Amino acid sequence: MTFPTQDQIRALQAEFGTPLYVYDQSSLERAAGEVLGFPNAYGLTARYAMKALSTGAIIRVLAQAGLHIDASSGYEAERAIRAGVAPERIQITAQQLPADLKGLVERGVGFNACSLRQLQAFGQIFPGREISVRINPGLGSGHNNRTNVGGPSSSFGIWHEHLDEVLALQREFDLRLTGMHTHIGSGSDPVVWERCARMSLDIAAQLPGVQRLSLGGGFKVARAEGETPTDLQAIGRALLPDFEAFTDAHGRELHLEIEPGTYLVANAGWIVASVIDVVDTGANGYRFIKTDTGMTELLRPNLYGAQHPIEIVPADGDENREISDYLVAGHCCESGDVITPRPGDPEGLLPRELAAPQVGDALVIGGAGAYCSSLAGKNYNSFPEAAEVLISRDGTPRLVRRRQTLDQMLANEVLD
Amino acid sequence: MTFPTQDQIRALQAEFGTPLYVYDQSSLERAAGEVLGFPNAYGLTARYAMKALSTGAIIRVLAQAGLHIDASSGYEAERAIRAGVAPERIQITAQQLPADLKGLVERGVGFNACSLRQLQAFGQIFPGREISVRINPGLGSGHNNRTNVGGPSSSFGIWHEHLDEVLALQREFDLRLTGMHTHIGSGSDPVVWERCARMSLDIAAQLPGVQRLSLGGGFKVARAEGETPTDLQAIGRALLPDFEAFTDAHGRELHLEIEPGTYLVANAGWIVASVIDVVDTGANGYRFIKTDTGMTELLRPNLYGAQHPIEIVPADGDENREISDYLVAGHCCESGDVITPRPGDPEGLLPRELAAPQVGDALVIGGAGAYCSSLAGKNYNSFPEAAEVLISRDGTPRLVRRRQTLDQMLANEVLD
Repeated sequence: MTFPTQDQIRALQAEFGTPLYVYDQSSLERAAGEVLGFPNAYGLTARYAMKALSTGAIIRVLAQAGLHIDASSGYEAERAIRAGVAPERIQITAQQLPADLKGLVERGVGFNACSLRQLQAFGQIFPGREISVRINPGLGSGHNNRTNVGGPSSSFGIWHEHLDEVLALQREFDLRLTGMHTHIGSGSDPVVWERCARMSLDIAAQLPGVQRLSLGGGFKVARAEGETPTDLQAIGRALLPDFEAFTDAHGRELHLEIEPGTYLVANAGWIVASVIDVVDTGANGYRFIKTDTGMTELLRPNLYGAQHPIEIVPADGDENREISDYLVAGHCCESGDVITPRPGDPEGLLPRELAAPQVGDALVIGGAGAYCSSLAGKNYNSFPEAAEVLISRDGTPRLVRRRQTLDQMLANEVLD
Repeated sequence: MTFPTQDQIRALQAEFGTPLYVYDQSSLERAAGEVLGFPNAYGLTARYAMKALSTGAIIRVLAQAGLHIDASSGYEAERAIRAGVAPERIQITAQQLPADLKGLVERGVGFNACSLRQLQAFGQIFPGREISVRINPGLGSGHNNRTNVGGPSSSFGIWHEHLDEVLALQREFDLRLTGMHTHIGSGSDPVVWERCARMSLDIAAQLPGVQRLSLGGGFKVARAEGETPTDLQAIGRALLPDFEAFTDAHGRELHLEIEPGTYLVANAGWIVASVIDVVDTGANGYRFIKTDTGMTELLRPNLYGAQHPIEIVPADGDENREISDYLVAGHCCESGDVITPRPGDPEGLLPRELAAPQVGDALVIGGAGAYCSSLAGKNYNSFPEAAEVLISRDGTPRLVRRRQTLDQMLANEVLD
């Protein structure tokens, strides 16, 4: 890792303790710039899918950089508002109808109906109001069911064969159906994107009021060596002719929306942990580094066999530690708490070349911005939620989330 | 499900809201009785592996039923003490040395050293004190790396070839090494248990002060139809001759310890959720029930393809709803949030026969006592932690954990 530097890591470890999430404002803003430069024919709104990393300070940085917000629950919308985002810049796309849908929409939050029932519920509360609908176009991009959110195996959005019912509800409640949303998945193949976009445009053609088309969905990033990041420019340019052809055919200039999460934050985040033990299982076994993080802060290796860069930062600054193979284990009493699984195989183990560790060294895990703090085995083994720090543009770290206390963890328990 | 009854479920849904964890005191006590009846030659201590379900009220029920506590972190030990467990009945077996090891041990908590470094650290603080060591005997029982905690792929415990170093540290710090612990895994095969127990006894023979042997490890339960539960009596009886032979050979009568978690709580817990939507993906697709729970309360299907019984409880009491095939999806904007994966395959989908659902019906998920509340994707999509209820012996539900508020979720954020 070139950033944070080893000196910065040691300073963070000493000042804030471990495990610690560290985010970098400049990296966030650079990614925001790339996303906001996504090629488009007739205008672009880029929404940050805040479920990827929901900490208020991060939402604020990305919102100030020009991103709107994709909220996947009413709670997320509320959280974005509290972080200072204007309600008009937030749109809810959720499996679960917010309990306070009425209040949120009255404050200005946009709503993207993800099912016929949601469309009906919205119409009943807000007849005549502007709305968007999420359609499942019948195809998605992503490596399997767990990342593929289009197609018949996906419950997300209104199945494309039910457009008549969409239009019937639109008429019943006199809704202004100006937005349409499909979620293409989280693949990085421009060909699949283009194919999905064309299917989406074909559907938009059948919804005559639609003026903005959201091609929701993530863009893959390269967290580990050998992974291929998405080329946003290539994907965006591939879609231009289709949007222009749509205008020629239907007389509508469609405003484009995209909704990345991972792309914006994945490589702007690190977990700084400490080496707490080094053990081995004999000459024919493995050497293990144990660390004070694990599935409590980083569930992706356990869920997906995800690969994250790992680096040992020697406490003594020794740059000549011998390099050899280690497995890295988390601090949970759980055999699956292994940070070095085989790629794509949480059951497998793949040793990493790392510098000889000593107890007290820092251990840094990269690519930890997306779906780490927001999707983790929080409080497993009763470990408290980690603290979070944001490194500002001038390099100063600022605490943006305090470490949880045991009292907080137990605050809701009733022991009579 | 025969218990809770449909009427109870509807009452719970109405009184406490959903999603809601529901635990049953009588079921907990019944399981405790089975565990405490584990066959043994020279005495038994059964510890509840509280990481399976860490709520104070549950710990209290099991402790009052006669169980001791296996704590997998210093935080867990503290939590058990707060729930009213006598420190002398708690033993810490942890990957991470508690920050306050000294204070906990001084209060009476037992310590089971899981590495040479832990043994050394304990000796430095408490020379001459009584201690237990966890040994990795070189073999474990469990279906794969994620549940197998013995053998060369496991970082848990001191590798059995390092006994000389254990004895050297014992001498160095004059420790009374009276306990030995191996963790056999979570399989249900008596043959594997016996084989692991024999290996453990062979190791205990080389540690002359050892008077109690903990065969840590879980016992499988049958959550879903077709799964085979562990026969505790069969496993326990299979071990008796080996313990007796050990006494004949070495003149020591070993006190047995076991440490189940799942066996005690898995089938004493349910998640009561609500049907929030019903959608389909066309004639050749699927029908989906969407519910207000999911990986936020139940991560096991997503982690392991785990199977949990599911039942629709009609709000209108209609017992003649048509039965057909549905997939059940959680409320997170995450394609993997599917509660009906293929067995053992989180990427796959397997429809369930369920009663025709209507929005507002309750949806009950069984087998949700172990590793659900304690190991979940808490706060993903910013959903608050669910409330928890304990049904007392007389059938009265009592709130034992309040639902989290958004204010609590954000309490540690620092926004400027």
